[in-house]
Amino acid sequence: MNKPIKISAVLVDRANYGRLKPVLNIMRNDSGVELNLVCTGTMLLDRFGKAVDLVKNDGFGVSEEIYIELEGSVPSTMAKSIGLAVIELSNVFQKHSPDFVLLIGDRSEALGVAIAAVYQNLCLIHIQGGEVTGSIDESARHAITKLAHYHFPSTKQAEKNIVQMGEHKECVFSYGCPSADVVSNSKLTPSNISLNMGVGSILDLSKDYLLVLFHPVTTECSSSEEQMIELLGAIKKINIQTILIWPNIDAGSDGISQAIRRFREDNKHVKLRAYKNFEPEEYIPLLDNAVCAIGNSSSFIRDASFLGVPVVLVGSRQDGRECSDAVIRVKPKKEEIVKKVKVQLKHGKYKRSNLYGQEGVSIRIVKQIKNLKKYTQKRLVVR
Amino acid sequence: MNKPIKISAVLVDRANYGRLKPVLNIMRNDSGVELNLVCTGTMLLDRFGKAVDLVKNDGFGVSEEIYIELEGSVPSTMAKSIGLAVIELSNVFQKHSPDFVLLIGDRSEALGVAIAAVYQNLCLIHIQGGEVTGSIDESARHAITKLAHYHFPSTKQAEKNIVQMGEHKECVFSYGCPSADVVSNSKLTPSNISLNMGVGSILDLSKDYLLVLFHPVTTECSSSEEQMIELLGAIKKINIQTILIWPNIDAGSDGISQAIRRFREDNKHVKLRAYKNFEPEEYIPLLDNAVCAIGNSSSFIRDASFLGVPVVLVGSRQDGRECSDAVIRVKPKKEEIVKKVKVQLKHGKYKRSNLYGQEGVSIRIVKQIKNLKKYTQKRLVVR
Amino acid sequence: MNKPIKISAVLVDRANYGRLKPVLNIMRNDSGVELNLVCTGTMLLDRFGKAVDLVKNDGFGVSEEIYIELEGSVPSTMAKSIGLAVIELSNVFQKHSPDFVLLIGDRSEALGVAIAAVYQNLCLIHIQGGEVTGSIDESARHAITKLAHYHFPSTKQAEKNIVQMGEHKECVFSYGCPSADVVSNSKLTPSNISLNMGVGSILDLSKDYLLVLFHPVTTECSSSEEQMIELLGAIKKINIQTILIWPNIDAGSDGISQAIRRFREDNKHVKLRAYKNFEPEEYIPLLDNAVCAIGNSSSFIRDASFLGVPVVLVGSRQDGRECSDAVIRVKPKKEEIVKKVKVQLKHGKYKRSNLYGQEGVSIRIVKQIKNLKKYTQKRLVVR
Amino acid sequence: MNKPIKISAVLVDRANYGRLKPVLNIMRNDSGVELNLVCTGTMLLDRFGKAVDLVKNDGFGVSEEIYIELEGSVPSTMAKSIGLAVIELSNVFQKHSPDFVLLIGDRSEALGVAIAAVYQNLCLIHIQGGEVTGSIDESARHAITKLAHYHFPSTKQAEKNIVQMGEHKECVFSYGCPSADVVSNSKLTPSNISLNMGVGSILDLSKDYLLVLFHPVTTECSSSEEQMIELLGAIKKINIQTILIWPNIDAGSDGISQAIRRFREDNKHVKLRAYKNFEPEEYIPLLDNAVCAIGNSSSFIRDASFLGVPVVLVGSRQDGRECSDAVIRVKPKKEEIVKKVKVQLKHGKYKRSNLYGQEGVSIRIVKQIKNLKKYTQKRLVVR
Repeated sequence: MNKPIKISAVLVDRANYGRLKPVLNIMRNDSGVELNLVCTGTMLLDRFGKAVDLVKNDGFGVSEEIYIELEGSVPSTMAKSIGLAVIELSNVFQKHSPDFVLLIGDRSEALGVAIAAVYQNLCLIHIQGGEVTGSIDESARHAITKLAHYHFPSTKQAEKNIVQMGEHKECVFSYGCPSADVVSNSKLTPSNISLNMGVGSILDLSKDYLLVLFHPVTTECSSSEEQMIELLGAIKKINIQTILIWPNIDAGSDGISQAIRRFREDNKHVKLRAYKNFEPEEYIPLLDNAVCAIGNSSSFIRDASFLGVPVVLVGSRQDGRECSDAVIRVKPKKEEIVKKVKVQLKHGKYKRSNLYGQEGVSIRIVKQIKNLKKYTQKRLVVR
Repeated sequence: MNKPIKISAVLVDRANYGRLKPVLNIMRNDSGVELNLVCTGTMLLDRFGKAVDLVKNDGFGVSEEIYIELEGSVPSTMAKSIGLAVIELSNVFQKHSPDFVLLIGDRSEALGVAIAAVYQNLCLIHIQGGEVTGSIDESARHAITKLAHYHFPSTKQAEKNIVQMGEHKECVFSYGCPSADVVSNSKLTPSNISLNMGVGSILDLSKDYLLVLFHPVTTECSSSEEQMIELLGAIKKINIQTILIWPNIDAGSDGISQAIRRFREDNKHVKLRAYKNFEPEEYIPLLDNAVCAIGNSSSFIRDASFLGVPVVLVGSRQDGRECSDAVIRVKPKKEEIVKKVKVQLKHGKYKRSNLYGQEGVSIRIVKQIKNLKKYTQKRLVVR
Repeated sequence: MNKPIKISAVLVDRANYGRLKPVLNIMRNDSGVELNLVCTGTMLLDRFGKAVDLVKNDGFGVSEEIYIELEGSVPSTMAKSIGLAVIELSNVFQKHSPDFVLLIGDRSEALGVAIAAVYQNLCLIHIQGGEVTGSIDESARHAITKLAHYHFPSTKQAEKNIVQMGEHKECVFSYGCPSADVVSNSKLTPSNISLNMGVGSILDLSKDYLLVLFHPVTTECSSSEEQMIELLGAIKKINIQTILIWPNIDAGSDGISQAIRRFREDNKHVKLRAYKNFEPEEYIPLLDNAVCAIGNSSSFIRDASFLGVPVVLVGSRQDGRECSDAVIRVKPKKEEIVKKVKVQLKHGKYKRSNLYGQEGVSIRIVKQIKNLKKYTQKRLVVR
Repeated sequence: MNKPIKISAVLVDRANYGRLKPVLNIMRNDSGVELNLVCTGTMLLDRFGKAVDLVKNDGFGVSEEIYIELEGSVPSTMAKSIGLAVIELSNVFQKHSPDFVLLIGDRSEALGVAIAAVYQNLCLIHIQGGEVTGSIDESARHAITKLAHYHFPSTKQAEKNIVQMGEHKECVFSYGCPSADVVSNSKLTPSNISLNMGVGSILDLSKDYLLVLFHPVTTECSSSEEQMIELLGAIKKINIQTILIWPNIDAGSDGISQAIRRFREDNKHVKLRAYKNFEPEEYIPLLDNAVCAIGNSSSFIRDASFLGVPVVLVGSRQDGRECSDAVIRVKPKKEEIVKKVKVQLKHGKYKRSNLYGQEGVSIRIVKQIKNLKKYTQKRLVVR
């Protein structure tokens, strides 16, 4: 029998786990894979729901828990956290010496992890490359692509983009986004979800509700607070009970959190409840049953597409990303948001879209990974 | 009158300065530019000739000197030094808040600087992107391209590569490599060069000599020492007096230095003198008068092309990089090196090549930089 | 005329500024001193009231703002923040090269700053050394003493302790704590204080109120949350309107904040308002007019002594610290806290104590600093 | 049966291992101890003989190898390396969660390790505290004492000093220096030592030879090179074959190394051979048979005392340290060094001294450690 391949999968935030979970689940049940799970970034932080605890509750062994996030939510703390990621992960990779490092997405921390991996001559696998968006994530995502050895983009267009950037066609596998499998694995309904964790009003999820998640756009970080104030003003005016998830840690998020806290203080009658995080299987039915999802989370593009949930996409963060019909884009202005939400409420559910893949993505990814040949030296494909 | 544009130019090693010097010289004499010079990486280290002292002797003000290099010359120290670069430069950029950050080349440290810059929403200018080589530099170079906002590649092919990678055509300016101007500014002859700095035999530069510079290939770092032993064996056999420059700090360089020290200890009769660094204007005539340049420095591709010096390019470090007729590629094997050097000695000087540009590159670069519009949000050009 | 002495004063948290302000005020008006103010640690963080903004509003120039705090509030993030302090301040001191570095207190970050200073051969002045307490601060304080070259303890006993530890008697000056001057400079009354910043109930400060500030004890950090729950339970039972200040960043503070947030959520009728920070001149009258101060802030020992405010000191954090008659110590148990607060309410104001000095401390400190001779090599006084 | 106590022993340089080896040897053969060996600092660096390889060759398992040293050998790189030590060891201790952390000596890196340990509430054992010397080590040593929970000083005076500094008498155990056991374990003679590793002249150790080891004094680091030039000048004049060991990494060591390299280059006839490191059992007989030891290594105070080797102690680095009759102190001036060496050559071997303990120290230390009760909160003993 062959020696199992040793894979270090590094999770840097709650969304990473939300999407990679079905892949990790298949890997840990496959004797051909030795899975080494590293949790870092906001995965460890209470303020973001400490997703590492979900990972452990799901029975995964976590081999390293590495704190790297600086507090401040300004550009320089964001950058310094990347620096710490590089330093700390260098130790981890030096010690574990895996065959492959597995990363997903475009977070700043993931860019740090990618550097730590490739400068140690490790073979880097990247999921979700090749997409086009706003924010600094746009640059980070493509930089990771230029460091990675194998690519598992989520759409055909993303595959095309990666190949255009000079990656070898035979190293790119567009099987879709593994979150497709999270969606199909979710059996819960909102009614049996533990909603007591958050803060704010008591909600009744048998009635209509909105789902809101708005992250800062780092390249416009100084206006984050203002943008959130507009969005919250819209929520107030729409006057439907609302589940809100706190933003990620990017530069500008303090302003957003500030706006939320002040709004809650000043609008105690508004039926809004704020959460740090949900388990992936809890989140999907919550999204599925929302009458409208408002904000700029990439989940509103991927997962909402699978589900056909009406989405009002606010601001520039997802500019350029492919999306299904269910998505209406809008500027971060109160009145415009209100108007588009009304359009979506009137429309109701959309048809499910397979733009970002369909059930079975994860199993195909794992199967392919097991067949990859590890290599070190990359070279641009010149045309 | 307009406010001068504020440019932070960051130099990370002796070669950075060697090439960027004519650009910096023009900038500091231009009242439209406020130049802020940051020296970091091996620029500060004695073992590499402390190039920061050359910068100061040339009359430049150095606003920051930042130590970031970990000792060890293994993959994890190389990675950790990048991490420190990100952390330290974040402070610098937070404080100075320049209009543009200017970087050259593909060093690991430069990748760290690029991250510190773009995560602070600064507009990044990159010189020498788009080329294709071996070593980890290949990946770092393209990752920097994906982070940078403006590009000044050295060749037409490099420009084509950058545009292919999805950069906007109007942000790419292929004016050639500024080292073309170093070459044309050099007026010295080897005879009046201060050669007493190195260690080893006394050389007579009015006679034939070889010039050797061999860096580790990080992606093959464990065999660096062996490769250098082969190269030194060839030198010994060729039996022509030799100027050798110590390698850079990349993973594997300890092995190379070890091989050199042992060779010197065991071969005291071999006429070899080892140097840490030369001033750019000293280096060019030294190269120009060498009967053959042997090794894998990118200078042997750029500067030697301008000069027509016969080059024997050893190993994979420059695989894929465009070069003039003066270059013969060879595996890092003693006998093959000897054979090819003999071919070059027989051939003698080649015709000068303008592959990497010609006099006047630097002035065009500065002129263009002064006309750039700074911006933050990048977006992949999708075809 | 003599060249002014160059002093780098480093502030790491809001309390540092609260105490050092009168010293800094005198220094900036003294032409014999060139003051270089560095703000780091929680001084920069929104969550702790961003005290750096107070510093700027008070007209001080801040030459460096350096983010070093890792988020997580666990022992390892606390330690890593020290590591970053050492690294970042090394750059600052290398660049500024002051005659003296001035530090106050026993914060973890201050230990990092002290190391950065003395390993660069700078002469370190330490204010508030020699006291005895609980928490890790006890160890940090004495370690800083062993690194510092001059000492300005706040009490005679502290002076004795420092000399006993082997410091030279002539390098120790026990003039009292500079916060004595903050107290005497404060002219405000609580009624004209801007209390609208916090979150929670609207308070009426013309009536009785409690002041609460409870930090984690790092050496018992896992029980911090529990301790705070007890304290909040006591507040609820006592049923007097309460001003609460959020805890510092030490390991365990997330638990305390968590307890506060949950308490606020579950006890909306309890008249409690929570603040991040106050200006020094606002804080003193607030403390002065409280009917009782409850918690473990060192301010409740120093400033409350000057003012004669009745204090209930909760838990082990201040174990061993000298205090005036106004202080009653109690275990972190609800019923005991309630009992002791009642004792204090009945007693009312105490006589003012000069244990920690009296008006004029700061001017004496500055005068003495200007006469110090800088030196590098320390040596233990052996008896 | 009781669970074994878990001890993380951290080695930061070759001398640490040289002294702690007998203690580690006893521990690994004791089923009551679970030994977790961490190698960091210059232990990993080729330039200092890569002592980690000796550790592995001796059959110890090394659980972590952590690179932390910045290159530059200036004060700020020394400080930054401490910062990295704190950051990296925080991870290690968070993961391993030992009962005790064991440290020896006064290196800057050890101070970083101590901080990482105590801020994680670990119980810290320190060997070799309480001594008095020059250089920054003097401050670091006492700062570590103020952080450590248990102390194993090497002399009675050191014990007295530690208690005077406010440590609890019952936590201090002055059993001597474990290097006493290295001395008694050494059975080799110089003739069977592998001397071929170094660079320089071939020596004949059956004849008289000098042993030289001179470290920088960090508090005088700018004059290190000059001091070494004086010392080398003395060697040349004395004209006895010489074994030289390269200096440690402290600020100023580049100057010393520079002086050595230049001296070797310019004085090829002087019979001098330079080594990076020796195994502890090789080093002791080398020292034992030297006709005189010259320099400022603490080994010349401890080990040379045990052996009665005549020592000329150069400069201020060991000022204040207790020493036996075999030591003559001298300023770093060529003529004075020559004069005192002549005195020592004439005198020959001294009587063995037990000032720093005698055979059996290590076994007593381990026995005591096994009986220690771990605790977290320290408190100054106030008199």
